[in-house]
Amino acid sequence: MQHINTILFDNFTTLDAIGPTGVFSCLKDKYEINYFSLPGGIIKGSSNLEVVTKNLCEIKSYDILIIPGGLGTRELVSNQVFIDNLRIVAEKSKYVLCICTGSALLAKTELLDGKMATSNKLSWNWVIEQNKNVKWQKGKRWVVDGKYYSSSGITAGIDMALGYISDIHGKDAATQICKVLEYIWNNNPENDPFSN
Amino acid sequence: MQHINTILFDNFTTLDAIGPTGVFSCLKDKYEINYFSLPGGIIKGSSNLEVVTKNLCEIKSYDILIIPGGLGTRELVSNQVFIDNLRIVAEKSKYVLCICTGSALLAKTELLDGKMATSNKLSWNWVIEQNKNVKWQKGKRWVVDGKYYSSSGITAGIDMALGYISDIHGKDAATQICKVLEYIWNNNPENDPFSN
Repeated sequence: MQHINTILFDNFTTLDAIGPTGVFSCLKDKYEINYFSLPGGIIKGSSNLEVVTKNLCEIKSYDILIIPGGLGTRELVSNQVFIDNLRIVAEKSKYVLCICTGSALLAKTELLDGKMATSNKLSWNWVIEQNKNVKWQKGKRWVVDGKYYSSSGITAGIDMALGYISDIHGKDAATQICKVLEYIWNNNPENDPFSN
Repeated sequence: MQHINTILFDNFTTLDAIGPTGVFSCLKDKYEINYFSLPGGIIKGSSNLEVVTKNLCEIKSYDILIIPGGLGTRELVSNQVFIDNLRIVAEKSKYVLCICTGSALLAKTELLDGKMATSNKLSWNWVIEQNKNVKWQKGKRWVVDGKYYSSSGITAGIDMALGYISDIHGKDAATQICKVLEYIWNNNPENDPFSN
């Protein structure tokens, strides 16, 4: 069983987190999903959703870290305690999947320095200013560099999570999940209709 | 301000609810989203997500009701207290949007009798058995009959919510939300790749 550790914060974009975890939840025998935050307790996301989270100390196994984006990232990039904690968890994790402006948070940890990554296209200029040592890739639906996956905005995270499943378990496994989710997968990471 | 009342229950499919609310949350000046359940309090959805809900009595305005599906529907179709309460809320609401097997719950209220509706394709046979007086439509991504919208499985709810936005606010408004969500919208309700 691999553990999916989703890190939440106030004003995270709910669909950034729930899209990818919705993909992983189709393989219940392989993945256990949990939700964490720096303080623990109730976190309020976009669309007014209040989610119960565990404290970061309660992470059982550092397998896959999911980092959503959202308006909350605007403040968090300057919150050194959050960034330091995110760095510790991301460094320990076998894989890190960031969605939308979640890559701005990961970039602030400096773990993406010299690596390729992408992000939300409407917030592109703000994101790339957060760390110029990242090799930002604009015209991509999602990008993989070593253990780091990053996607474009919001629903691109679903495409990326299916890409991860395909990389690890094979394309048939990803296609089977699409049938369960009734999802029309954009399975080409080079196909980004929103970069212009 | 229109109120979106999302009714949750244990073992709801998280993406069924968070897809459409993610669409509506892009129009923050027009829609206020809240989450309700019969008992109120914490409800656990698929992907292990624990959400804080209000009691159904706390609904402020009966504008738009969202009914997700999920494994929890299997028990709820036989829970007459839940179905009676759902009927009261659905009858009062100006619009009702059900996603995936959420239409099985709505069918049980008998409010869909004589009306067209669709549902999840993998659970199709179970759904249509719940009420044979509904004019079930198999090869549809989503179906509109009066105030009732119903979608196919899980992510079809995102397409349907965008269809609702298009019906009410015009297609440009829906296209603008797609840009924010970076979502490749299947905007044709007749295009259902999962019905066979």
